Amino acid sequence: MIKISEIGCFPKTIEEAKVQLVIGSRILSNEGIVDSYGHISVRNPEDPETFLQSRSLAADIVTLDDILVMDFEGNVLEGPEGARPYWENVLHGRIFAARSDVGCVFHGHPLEVHPFTVMPDMPPLPVKNSGGVFYNGYGYYDSPAGSDMTVKTVEEADDVAAALGDKWAVLMRCHGVTAASENIPQMIVDMIAMVQNASVYTDCLKMGITPKFCSPEEGLAYRTSHHAEKPLLRAWEYYVRRAKRAIEDIRDM
Amino acid sequence: MIKISEIGCFPKTIEEAKVQLVIGSRILSNEGIVDSYGHISVRNPEDPETFLQSRSLAADIVTLDDILVMDFEGNVLEGPEGARPYWENVLHGRIFAARSDVGCVFHGHPLEVHPFTVMPDMPPLPVKNSGGVFYNGYGYYDSPAGSDMTVKTVEEADDVAAALGDKWAVLMRCHGVTAASENIPQMIVDMIAMVQNASVYTDCLKMGITPKFCSPEEGLAYRTSHHAEKPLLRAWEYYVRRAKRAIEDIRDM
Amino acid sequence: MIKISEIGCFPKTIEEAKVQLVIGSRILSNEGIVDSYGHISVRNPEDPETFLQSRSLAADIVTLDDILVMDFEGNVLEGPEGARPYWENVLHGRIFAARSDVGCVFHGHPLEVHPFTVMPDMPPLPVKNSGGVFYNGYGYYDSPAGSDMTVKTVEEADDVAAALGDKWAVLMRCHGVTAASENIPQMIVDMIAMVQNASVYTDCLKMGITPKFCSPEEGLAYRTSHHAEKPLLRAWEYYVRRAKRAIEDIRDM
Amino acid sequence: MIKISEIGCFPKTIEEAKVQLVIGSRILSNEGIVDSYGHISVRNPEDPETFLQSRSLAADIVTLDDILVMDFEGNVLEGPEGARPYWENVLHGRIFAARSDVGCVFHGHPLEVHPFTVMPDMPPLPVKNSGGVFYNGYGYYDSPAGSDMTVKTVEEADDVAAALGDKWAVLMRCHGVTAASENIPQMIVDMIAMVQNASVYTDCLKMGITPKFCSPEEGLAYRTSHHAEKPLLRAWEYYVRRAKRAIEDIRDM
Repeated sequence: MIKISEIGCFPKTIEEAKVQLVIGSRILSNEGIVDSYGHISVRNPEDPETFLQSRSLAADIVTLDDILVMDFEGNVLEGPEGARPYWENVLHGRIFAARSDVGCVFHGHPLEVHPFTVMPDMPPLPVKNSGGVFYNGYGYYDSPAGSDMTVKTVEEADDVAAALGDKWAVLMRCHGVTAASENIPQMIVDMIAMVQNASVYTDCLKMGITPKFCSPEEGLAYRTSHHAEKPLLRAWEYYVRRAKRAIEDIRDM
Repeated sequence: MIKISEIGCFPKTIEEAKVQLVIGSRILSNEGIVDSYGHISVRNPEDPETFLQSRSLAADIVTLDDILVMDFEGNVLEGPEGARPYWENVLHGRIFAARSDVGCVFHGHPLEVHPFTVMPDMPPLPVKNSGGVFYNGYGYYDSPAGSDMTVKTVEEADDVAAALGDKWAVLMRCHGVTAASENIPQMIVDMIAMVQNASVYTDCLKMGITPKFCSPEEGLAYRTSHHAEKPLLRAWEYYVRRAKRAIEDIRDM
Repeated sequence: MIKISEIGCFPKTIEEAKVQLVIGSRILSNEGIVDSYGHISVRNPEDPETFLQSRSLAADIVTLDDILVMDFEGNVLEGPEGARPYWENVLHGRIFAARSDVGCVFHGHPLEVHPFTVMPDMPPLPVKNSGGVFYNGYGYYDSPAGSDMTVKTVEEADDVAAALGDKWAVLMRCHGVTAASENIPQMIVDMIAMVQNASVYTDCLKMGITPKFCSPEEGLAYRTSHHAEKPLLRAWEYYVRRAKRAIEDIRDM
Repeated sequence: MIKISEIGCFPKTIEEAKVQLVIGSRILSNEGIVDSYGHISVRNPEDPETFLQSRSLAADIVTLDDILVMDFEGNVLEGPEGARPYWENVLHGRIFAARSDVGCVFHGHPLEVHPFTVMPDMPPLPVKNSGGVFYNGYGYYDSPAGSDMTVKTVEEADDVAAALGDKWAVLMRCHGVTAASENIPQMIVDMIAMVQNASVYTDCLKMGITPKFCSPEEGLAYRTSHHAEKPLLRAWEYYVRRAKRAIEDIRDM
């Protein structure tokens, strides 16, 4: 089996993508970004018009044997017989379809970010340089009235992709966050930055003060320097280690 | 012994109900919903006019050998000799008596929800779709003046059941929460949703903003889709795994 | 060696008191009530004009071999050669001297309670029934101007004891909390109640609302019913179990 | 190998400094003061015009084999072949150059302190006696407009050192904290004090109250008494123990 330490930021084969997807899922769970719900996906390096994602399981449960290959309408092309994808797999597919610069999609419900899904007039502006990776802001999406707010159809998923536009994350009212990145290590680092930034900005708002924000230029400069392979892999190595310490069944990966 | 993974949402025998009750108690403790106090109960699948609950122990301590069978006035019908039930066992019994649609009762004191027990004019409205499972609101109960606020008599317990009405949870002034569900996995998922929703709504109130709430229709739609067996068991599997990782003596269950 | 499970609330010998002191210290550390600083003491059951306390060590480090017997001026009567007591051992001694109803003294710096040490006009009123164990309020103490705020002399310690009066806890400006109880299990339960109550009340104040408080009568009723041996030991059993799960070297105690 | 328990506050050799640096890095990570980013350094006891620091790794990953010796412009003098220092190693170097009383430098991004980096009109005044170790206040630094805010040049690092002046910490807008201390155990204790003080003061500000602060005289008195070797090592022993409990590969150190 390929070891996670042998894969850089971008997987080169389906096998590498599967290993990264399992470790990435466990990290997101171990760092408290997802819980029983929430999932990531990765573009298929061997066929970029398809993507890989686990069947419908909590991120902490996902193993190599649970990964499906799907097209951008969410149809399962490969995978264990009878395996059921996530309800919202199409949400991932439509973002891959709309954005050729995206290699990884995240959907989840981090509590620290949630207040900003219900206060559209107060977006989570960057108060940390790391939060500046979302330097061009967040999209905002509201689901059709009276629905259960999950995104199950191609049409709804296209609406989320349109709300995302050329940004790197979209907030969904009363629901959660969908984010995009170039690769899985970047997604981990950026989601933790989003959560930390939201937490600090919330603190500022609770104190009733207007912080000195990080400018879009500073955010873009931070994004550029910190999305290089070396800083990303330094952070990734740390999150892999923490996950392996906490979770027995991935220690040999 | 029956394995927890072989039981669905609804236990079919007393044996299955006991296993679910032990695992459910440990999960509530492991997820921080209960601590030294707080307990759940389950309707007896072999005699629906009785219910099962542990003798008086912290939820983290409960084993298969500690489970009592009781009637709806809290009289012990079966169980280890001399085993003492919880003071508030009757609170569970009277809710089973009043509500034939209820298969599981919870009573506890989660800190995140507690502020709402002392501010009756500001109920914990849903700001998350998952918090929408309490789409028809919360009941409110106040204990007789000068009491220690625990519910020890059939009369007081009937008052709590009346305050609950057709809702799924009742807030108790300066005391805690009593909640109802159809089964134990649903109770875990709903209590975690209640705690998370309270936490986010509290954040909004601290920032002084009025959030865009989840509507009752959206809440009911979410409740309906997410209380189906598959999504419940996906979440339940996750909480079981976390509890088994943290707690040695349930790993073989 | 005497097992902790064989000792009730009140130790009957020095040996029992030592075991309870070690376990109680570990629990306070494990529950986050103390960290590198903070300590408890217990009245000597074999000579009630003396008390037992560890030599100067973080609570998490304390073992049976570290316990000193001291008089109420803080003079060491028995203990390992050269062992240095805590700077503030006299604070414990003077409270035992002033209050014959006190069997255990705590001093520490829980963060949740700290804001109330610097806002004397806003004492931590009970918003939880468990917080009602401090039904007759908190004393308030300020140290002499320009000191390092630790209590090292008999005179200062007598001033803290006077500020405590007939209450069960005293807040110390910019410093922390000193609390009294009848026995160690009660101290654990009451300190956790204090921290939880402070946390919830702080939440209320941050939301700008005036909660419906727990009345002194309700608090006293709660204190009376929950300080009986059975409810105390049920909670104590839980905290012992959590400490043993987390801390290897006390598992056989 | 030298055991950490055999080294006091001040290392006497490079070997001792390396052991302290590894343990100190792990403690900072284990206590949540740093995560994937953030680092400390120590003045070389064998050549005080140089300093020791890990190559570019998350603090949780650092081992004895990763330590570099560098001059105060950040040039690597000794270390594993090809080892890359942190981008911001020069930040450490220029503070050692400017301050002969400094034996240890910290740079990191603790979330609790972060709000104060974006509200320069509201510095983190001491509300705890332990927070009084920063009795003469915090410096404030802003990076050149449009940069990624990391400090990579001697000139920028000199500006940070100038902003630090004779204080013990400097806040950096939207970025984090750089702190100075005499030795590594003192740095651990002081950084935890800074985080705890910021957390409590933030609570006060959220409640809209003006706390009774710790005076500079009280802070200095606390700093003097608690920076003696015995109280520092008592706290240090506790943090070492917690780190060893959590992190397998340092248990024999």
